[in-house]
Amino acid sequence: MPKDQPAAGPNGTFTFHGGRQDAARRRFADAPQPWLDLSTGINPIAWPIGRLGAPDHGPLPLREALDGLCQAAARHVGAGRQAITALPGSEIGLRLLRHLDLPRPWRIVVPTYRTHADALPEAEPIEVGRLAAEAERGGTILLANPNNPDGRVLPPATLVGIAHRLAARGGMLVIDEAFADVATDIGVSPLLTADDRVIVMRSFGKFFGLAGVRLGFLCGAAAPVAAMAAMLGDWPVSAQAIACGTAAYGDPDWIDTTRRRLAADAAAVDRLLHDAGLSVSGDCPLFRLVECDDAAALFERLARAGILSRPFDDRPDWLRLGLPGDAAGFERLARTLRHR
Amino acid sequence: MPKDQPAAGPNGTFTFHGGRQDAARRRFADAPQPWLDLSTGINPIAWPIGRLGAPDHGPLPLREALDGLCQAAARHVGAGRQAITALPGSEIGLRLLRHLDLPRPWRIVVPTYRTHADALPEAEPIEVGRLAAEAERGGTILLANPNNPDGRVLPPATLVGIAHRLAARGGMLVIDEAFADVATDIGVSPLLTADDRVIVMRSFGKFFGLAGVRLGFLCGAAAPVAAMAAMLGDWPVSAQAIACGTAAYGDPDWIDTTRRRLAADAAAVDRLLHDAGLSVSGDCPLFRLVECDDAAALFERLARAGILSRPFDDRPDWLRLGLPGDAAGFERLARTLRHR
Repeated sequence: MPKDQPAAGPNGTFTFHGGRQDAARRRFADAPQPWLDLSTGINPIAWPIGRLGAPDHGPLPLREALDGLCQAAARHVGAGRQAITALPGSEIGLRLLRHLDLPRPWRIVVPTYRTHADALPEAEPIEVGRLAAEAERGGTILLANPNNPDGRVLPPATLVGIAHRLAARGGMLVIDEAFADVATDIGVSPLLTADDRVIVMRSFGKFFGLAGVRLGFLCGAAAPVAAMAAMLGDWPVSAQAIACGTAAYGDPDWIDTTRRRLAADAAAVDRLLHDAGLSVSGDCPLFRLVECDDAAALFERLARAGILSRPFDDRPDWLRLGLPGDAAGFERLARTLRHR
Repeated sequence: MPKDQPAAGPNGTFTFHGGRQDAARRRFADAPQPWLDLSTGINPIAWPIGRLGAPDHGPLPLREALDGLCQAAARHVGAGRQAITALPGSEIGLRLLRHLDLPRPWRIVVPTYRTHADALPEAEPIEVGRLAAEAERGGTILLANPNNPDGRVLPPATLVGIAHRLAARGGMLVIDEAFADVATDIGVSPLLTADDRVIVMRSFGKFFGLAGVRLGFLCGAAAPVAAMAAMLGDWPVSAQAIACGTAAYGDPDWIDTTRRRLAADAAAVDRLLHDAGLSVSGDCPLFRLVECDDAAALFERLARAGILSRPFDDRPDWLRLGLPGDAAGFERLARTLRHR
């Protein structure tokens, strides 16, 4: 069965991925319960899945239901003109990228989400400022937009320009839009045609707050999307994922309200951080990146108060914080930050 | 989005995979509703998932929960001494086999489940009688046990012997045990050590009647299991799959009762088929394989009565039938078969 990844230092388990409440409970056994998990960028106020009755988990999901889900996702993303396929989580989609026969050389824009290095093994890490120059080399470039953990957003039109340069040399641009739902003007898909050599990875669970459902999408250029679909087969996602994905993508009121709420809550977290003398060096409505001299000490202090944050092994001056989901969570974070 | 696969003949959509009720409703629009779907080998009486409260779909599933699921599955399968990893459905596991760097030459034992040809592309098809001889060539052999659609079961001890011959030449045996839960003496895992060069694919959804949950396992030799786990990442299956898989594998009473019921219901279907003058040429408690001169005509007649069965494009004399889930289903099948 899966083992903890090897990791350096006492916080190694926590620097690998967020969401390790189980390890946190073991390491900080005296912390007050329940844990306030701010270690991920998952919306703490989920789309109200209880609105749906339980789906019929018995039969294999029908093709027409899967098609309906993909159509709802494509409308939401603005990818109606491109190919699209559902994934059992964008993490699996990223990890299967290496098998899509993407053109070489491979590069990833760093710093970024840890899985990108596994997604295209031995890819050359490049800085975002090198994007235009690197596009002239062709091959494949993978980047996240918004980026994680620093929240950096490149305008979609800029990315289309990069894609065209790459395509002129037979290249392919891969954009991980896991956090792109937070605003209407981040996703690149509405600017693309079916012929553009771009593929876009989307995550359902982060913005909709339902990471446990395991749902994502790959959309864009026909050939790699078809290759991904073939790798996954006819039943890539669960009946539950189909039911709640279709309903949630078709709920514009909830989506609009949530975008506004996330922006307001993120601003409230910024005020708490500012009052505690901490500076925010990167942000996305679903998370803030704090830069401070000793982020490890801040991680420990928060953890002893039962608040799990996200440290980074290669950046001891960084700490990423998600949003609390209610007033009690905000108050708990405020109190802990205050007693610095 | 996924398209219907190309298929020859008027029943092409139905010969590709079972479970295409959506296509059946379109093609046989006048058939009585609801459809009785006997086109798959999924247990129509599911493990009672309603017993569980809804899981928390919000956060990413915890490592310790995933470990608990894998331990419960390993106990059920008798794979406690081997490596194991969870899959979002055994279909995806099969389709990713090609990326596990399995030794060549590749062979699949035919006739079998359609996806096996995609699992190891360009694998040489071999007859089951050739297994021992083919093992002397080393490489990888993939077979299903019980086999689908003919239900053929090879004794686990025979398979261990084949595996040892293969292993002596650096080979690997891959056993698709998607239907092995129907009895206690089919699975090969209890006879294996951690060093055996065997990997076993298991399906949760068929025996437990919860195919829409999308859950399966790969267990056995450490290296390919670890490679599969790495391809899927830290969150391979949903919170729902973890909750109901853990509970269902830990429910020996339901498992025992279900094994007995499936055997009895399968015998009842055999009686109906026999009374209709049809001969059963292959069987597994979850399905029967009927051999008759014109299976296409029988498929059509059943379909016009709202009963979906499973034809085969390369075997026009075959029709596979699953089990009805209740007395009304049995009566409907009996009535339709009677008016032959």
